[in-house]
Amino acid sequence: MKPQIVTLMSNNFSVKYRVYWEDTDGQGVVYYANYLKFAERARTEFLRHLNLVQTELKEKEKIFFVVRKCEIEYFKSAKLDDEIEVSACVNEVRNSSLEMMQICKNNEEILTSLKVQIVCIDSDLMRPKKIPQFIKDLLLNV
Amino acid sequence: MKPQIVTLMSNNFSVKYRVYWEDTDGQGVVYYANYLKFAERARTEFLRHLNLVQTELKEKEKIFFVVRKCEIEYFKSAKLDDEIEVSACVNEVRNSSLEMMQICKNNEEILTSLKVQIVCIDSDLMRPKKIPQFIKDLLLNV
Amino acid sequence: MKPQIVTLMSNNFSVKYRVYWEDTDGQGVVYYANYLKFAERARTEFLRHLNLVQTELKEKEKIFFVVRKCEIEYFKSAKLDDEIEVSACVNEVRNSSLEMMQICKNNEEILTSLKVQIVCIDSDLMRPKKIPQFIKDLLLNV
Amino acid sequence: MKPQIVTLMSNNFSVKYRVYWEDTDGQGVVYYANYLKFAERARTEFLRHLNLVQTELKEKEKIFFVVRKCEIEYFKSAKLDDEIEVSACVNEVRNSSLEMMQICKNNEEILTSLKVQIVCIDSDLMRPKKIPQFIKDLLLNV
Repeated sequence: MKPQIVTLMSNNFSVKYRVYWEDTDGQGVVYYANYLKFAERARTEFLRHLNLVQTELKEKEKIFFVVRKCEIEYFKSAKLDDEIEVSACVNEVRNSSLEMMQICKNNEEILTSLKVQIVCIDSDLMRPKKIPQFIKDLLLNV
Repeated sequence: MKPQIVTLMSNNFSVKYRVYWEDTDGQGVVYYANYLKFAERARTEFLRHLNLVQTELKEKEKIFFVVRKCEIEYFKSAKLDDEIEVSACVNEVRNSSLEMMQICKNNEEILTSLKVQIVCIDSDLMRPKKIPQFIKDLLLNV
Repeated sequence: MKPQIVTLMSNNFSVKYRVYWEDTDGQGVVYYANYLKFAERARTEFLRHLNLVQTELKEKEKIFFVVRKCEIEYFKSAKLDDEIEVSACVNEVRNSSLEMMQICKNNEEILTSLKVQIVCIDSDLMRPKKIPQFIKDLLLNV
Repeated sequence: MKPQIVTLMSNNFSVKYRVYWEDTDGQGVVYYANYLKFAERARTEFLRHLNLVQTELKEKEKIFFVVRKCEIEYFKSAKLDDEIEVSACVNEVRNSSLEMMQICKNNEEILTSLKVQIVCIDSDLMRPKKIPQFIKDLLLNV
């Protein structure tokens, strides 16, 4: 059941987050929607790591990013006190969108994998906008 | 352990919400912070019941409400599939703030009680503003 | 951008949920992970509608359901005070899993669509289990 | 508006958390209920810092902690990308309960302060239980 994409992910950006009570549900494991929160935290830190701070991008470049599509597969559950490692890796950069691949792991065990389509939005016109070249360069040279 | 305020609450506004997986935590009960969500839903519906819609208040009156203080007591736990009844009742209206009392019940059992101080904010100046008289009238004549 | 599946969904189960502050994020719209909460609420109500209460299934049948895969597409955003209609419809029932299609709408506008793979788990053995025939029958004769 | 308790808090345990999209609401600031999440994370890390891991306490000592009462005051708002420092400090330890004081700060600015009453629960009997002496000692000698 482990996805092939793992091999592609060997050398990428990741962050670690502790699982707290707020993340769990009555089944005693992390609630399925909350992996999207962990994934979004990691994407934010990935951008910050490239010196791309979303609040600044909105002010200076008049752009922000929205998720257009998200596919998530669940392999194993995480529990309270686990430390989840969430990776973020750019698969492809297109004109006004990009695709990212993300994996949540607990130690070396894969919990979930996500494929996320993200669109760059013009904050004045509120419609898709070409990703600025300097951002493309940063995303592609990670 | 049951608070005296209950008698005051006999004839007030309330709404019912189902407890879903998202509301529970790994202890199998509603996560303690989520009662503040249920309480806020009920306050919003209470205002709507008085024809006070927050998005319209912001546009037309240039005001919005923020919580300045919240005291919550936990008596019993709610579980998945329970239906929580959340009441909302105005205790006192002052110049630029008001105090509400709220109770979450499961059938006739009190789960939590909340005392919430709310401040009216001028959305242009971002500081406290006198509550418009028509809102005061509505709040006091419930 | 509107998915073809809509036609399939014409005559199915749906529930309505108000958008509250808790559901929105700093972009002023419903946070992307929260649509998975709305979808899960609708699936729970769909099961309840068939007289399948998850807490009872766990006790009596020793089973519970987990999400194995979720694909979500985002078309439009919902805002505070919107009322989201969330549908739930069974696409396919297999031995130990099923696939559901769900759509979130605001009035007649499609906000998001979800395809959700759900697995029936044996709560003693903690591994996939054949879906009991009476549940299959209920799911297929909606 | 700044509480006197600050002086008491000069030398205590604290952890830092980034504010992500999930934490904000449509007013562009951290949603009021989410400070209870940040506070709970800090309490958990405070216990871990004392080698008290909640999952182990439940297994070995048959106890867990629940919040009995929480008072929170809101002074300033935090926004996306802010880094919140959350402190945790024991005010008083009684037979089966304790009181903690917590402050959320953004740089040196106080955002919120919380006073939290916590009860030790016997996980078999599901009622308050005397806090084990070794835990009392740890809590009092921080």
